[in-house]
Amino acid sequence: IAQPGLQSNAIKKDWWHIDAIKPYKLPATASKMSYIKVQGNSFVNDKGKVIVFKGLSISDPDKLVKDGHWNKKHFEVIKSWGANLIRIPVHPVAYHQRGVEAYIKLLDEAVNWCSELGIYVLIDWHAIGNLQMEVLSQDMHKTTKSETFNFWRNIAEHYKDIPTVAFYELFNEPTTYDGQYGTASWDGWKTLMEQMIDLIYVYNKNVVPLVAGFNWAYDLTPVKDNPIARPGIGYVTHPYPGKRAVPREDKWELDFGFVADKYPVIATELGFMPGDEDENLKDDGIYGPSIIKYFNKKGISWVVWVFDPDWIPQMIKNWNYEPTSQGKFFSDVMKGK
Amino acid sequence: IAQPGLQSNAIKKDWWHIDAIKPYKLPATASKMSYIKVQGNSFVNDKGKVIVFKGLSISDPDKLVKDGHWNKKHFEVIKSWGANLIRIPVHPVAYHQRGVEAYIKLLDEAVNWCSELGIYVLIDWHAIGNLQMEVLSQDMHKTTKSETFNFWRNIAEHYKDIPTVAFYELFNEPTTYDGQYGTASWDGWKTLMEQMIDLIYVYNKNVVPLVAGFNWAYDLTPVKDNPIARPGIGYVTHPYPGKRAVPREDKWELDFGFVADKYPVIATELGFMPGDEDENLKDDGIYGPSIIKYFNKKGISWVVWVFDPDWIPQMIKNWNYEPTSQGKFFSDVMKGK
Amino acid sequence: IAQPGLQSNAIKKDWWHIDAIKPYKLPATASKMSYIKVQGNSFVNDKGKVIVFKGLSISDPDKLVKDGHWNKKHFEVIKSWGANLIRIPVHPVAYHQRGVEAYIKLLDEAVNWCSELGIYVLIDWHAIGNLQMEVLSQDMHKTTKSETFNFWRNIAEHYKDIPTVAFYELFNEPTTYDGQYGTASWDGWKTLMEQMIDLIYVYNKNVVPLVAGFNWAYDLTPVKDNPIARPGIGYVTHPYPGKRAVPREDKWELDFGFVADKYPVIATELGFMPGDEDENLKDDGIYGPSIIKYFNKKGISWVVWVFDPDWIPQMIKNWNYEPTSQGKFFSDVMKGK
Ligand SMILES: [Mg+2]
Ligand SMILES: [Mg+2]
Ligand SMILES: [Mg+2]
Ligand SMILES: [Mg+2]
Ligand SMILES: [Mg+2]
Repeated sequence: IAQPGLQSNAIKKDWWHIDAIKPYKLPATASKMSYIKVQGNSFVNDKGKVIVFKGLSISDPDKLVKDGHWNKKHFEVIKSWGANLIRIPVHPVAYHQRGVEAYIKLLDEAVNWCSELGIYVLIDWHAIGNLQMEVLSQDMHKTTKSETFNFWRNIAEHYKDIPTVAFYELFNEPTTYDGQYGTASWDGWKTLMEQMIDLIYVYNKNVVPLVAGFNWAYDLTPVKDNPIARPGIGYVTHPYPGKRAVPREDKWELDFGFVADKYPVIATELGFMPGDEDENLKDDGIYGPSIIKYFNKKGISWVVWVFDPDWIPQMIKNWNYEPTSQGKFFSDVMKGK
Repeated sequence: IAQPGLQSNAIKKDWWHIDAIKPYKLPATASKMSYIKVQGNSFVNDKGKVIVFKGLSISDPDKLVKDGHWNKKHFEVIKSWGANLIRIPVHPVAYHQRGVEAYIKLLDEAVNWCSELGIYVLIDWHAIGNLQMEVLSQDMHKTTKSETFNFWRNIAEHYKDIPTVAFYELFNEPTTYDGQYGTASWDGWKTLMEQMIDLIYVYNKNVVPLVAGFNWAYDLTPVKDNPIARPGIGYVTHPYPGKRAVPREDKWELDFGFVADKYPVIATELGFMPGDEDENLKDDGIYGPSIIKYFNKKGISWVVWVFDPDWIPQMIKNWNYEPTSQGKFFSDVMKGK
Repeated sequence: IAQPGLQSNAIKKDWWHIDAIKPYKLPATASKMSYIKVQGNSFVNDKGKVIVFKGLSISDPDKLVKDGHWNKKHFEVIKSWGANLIRIPVHPVAYHQRGVEAYIKLLDEAVNWCSELGIYVLIDWHAIGNLQMEVLSQDMHKTTKSETFNFWRNIAEHYKDIPTVAFYELFNEPTTYDGQYGTASWDGWKTLMEQMIDLIYVYNKNVVPLVAGFNWAYDLTPVKDNPIARPGIGYVTHPYPGKRAVPREDKWELDFGFVADKYPVIATELGFMPGDEDENLKDDGIYGPSIIKYFNKKGISWVVWVFDPDWIPQMIKNWNYEPTSQGKFFSDVMKGK
């Protein structure tokens, strides 16, 4: 069935008594943060002050539960590293395995902790592949158009009164993998994005939907002639080192940076690691400083991938939260060192 | 999988032996009723006599089984209240939970009882929401385009020789809920309806497919310029009291009544209840008499929601079949009092 | 979920460790066969030699396992009957029941045996019905567009280096059954076929995708004005005796034969049986010799349905591999008698 429901409804005998996702209320311990809005090519708070977001992705809450580290301390450490934004990647497989209700309870806990700590939250539907043909990358990313619409319906209805949840990243990494995931068009993608944004705004006009382009969310060139026809959104890029050869700045400008002159742009993934494990992530010593310099020049917000000791490129070496090289580098930048 | 099959096929080892839905034959105890057809803006029987249908919806057969009231007596009481049509709302969740074969066996029992009692049956695919994007209202309504096509394929093939089953209500309440269920267009809806009607007519030309409009099956205004391009159908409206303020007649005329000048119209849901439990259903003392007067004037058939002591607005107070206020009101009208 | 995955991934706790379908490598005992390509209206080998394929369909590997005859001997007998091509019909229900990984392991065994015996393999996604509306014929054929795309993705990735697997038959028998499975258009079908071919070629340019037309893969008339706009493919027909009355040759020419003047054509199903069990298959004594004569004249390849003692029309009477009348007839032709 296209629209996954609450497990409690699917199996219950008296299915006519509705248990639905309800608007969430923060506990009294959490103070209400300012809403984030789009103004020109910037993100601004309630007072119109421009905010540049600098943060990181955690791993999937489901993994953190299994690792024994789904707790407020995890978020406190991230706060101490200087982040003002935490990205939560919701992998479809984990959402399926736990069920909608149980998974959203995990998100509620993260929202509580972040609200208490004054950190913004970005919810990321962490699918990869070609949603138009429903050919996704790996089994963990499997989803449908209908499920994706309904996911955002649930999230938008549930968090509409919670300014902490400032960003919805509609679909992590659109890609046809040079045809390995079939064919897709920007027009088809644009229509899907506009359908999602329209649905979200009915529930919640106080959130910023984030739209990525193809090539695993790297390429924003179609925005030049054919932008998403909805106000109040931001654009996403994932400019890993392997995307372009040094010197990268001119390519970044053509591939995604030009968008930042007109719309807010946020690099919701970036990162690097030493060694040859993954060509796309390989640290050349130049990447980190140069991309931060470029982001600063363009006013682009950014989120490092990933605050986990297993998933690559790691920001922490172990559960003592010892930073890796990129962990130290980006933490220093976040702290203004 | 898009097309749900028979449970016996899904699990069986020798899947190559086909168990399929077969055309149903009435038991010898049931006399064959006249077929119902469309003639101009009326429903007529085999002799061309115009029939105005006045009836009610039962609750889902699955609920009635669980309540211990799935028996002929339930239908005999309805007959004694004056109904010449019973609407059976098939909720997708119940169809999934029981499985196609078991659910259709329940429908067969209803068809037998109604054939014996001389009451017509309307089968209603009781989904609510936006089928175009497959964003349905509640978990109980979850379905897909493919499942809906296949449901009507099964029903049309199974009941093609049974005139008792006179109406197929293709989709209970189409609505985008002002965008909460995404976006939809009349053109897209029209295409889906025409696909279903074409499929049904291949099996069964002796049935009347019923088509609803948006706003939870209230609004038929697009029929003016862009009617469903298929013969032999009826249009549906659900004109609950809350849809319009008193005096309602002029609005009814513009919203759905004008259609009845050209096509048969049947209000497959209407009803009211005292008190403030539901604004949309609130009895103002005017609604009942005025809508019956309007229906009589326009020759519109009607079906009251709902002959159940739990679901609102109730027609019965309890399992002694004590009528509620709307139960008494509509029963009196059906009996010609 | 639209894209069925590996069972091991769906249930496992650490879903972030990917188990994916990997390119298959033949065992050392199997010699590498020549790739098969399209040249003009012919299939040719690496040396440009035209090959006309003459073979047969086995029953579904899942059935053969259950029958206790999934072994090399089954394929050796087929070799001894003179076949140079074996068609393997993958029924969606069997693929679902076993799971992707387990099912593909069966295919690997067939590919090993055929490689050792020097017989080519055709993999057939054995669905029947209307994929556009996802209304399939029987429960055993149930699938979705998305699943069909992903099936070919898995197959193309897995067998890209194995020339034994020379043909992918994209969808066994497209049909609307005169509307019983809804409506479909050649343009819509063409788009689906081109999407599948594009996806396949990204993984594997050394395979011949095979495209069928409507009327249960009999009718290729739309190819005249609107061929599939992709190179390197073949067209399929299933010209059972019941499709046309004697004399059939002129109709065959108009229905599918004309295509063979421009593109390679392969009749991936044909066959006959004595008696009245199935009008479509009924032997009239003329059919067998006349269609072989026609195929020879046109250079059309062919594959008999079906090497099984239960499924009709049978080629073998029993598990002693005693030939039926069509079994003997086609075996004699394959052996050049
Ligand atoms: Mg990534
Ligand atoms: Mg059927
Ligand atoms: Mg209703
Ligand atoms: Mg794969
Ligand atoms: Mg066949």
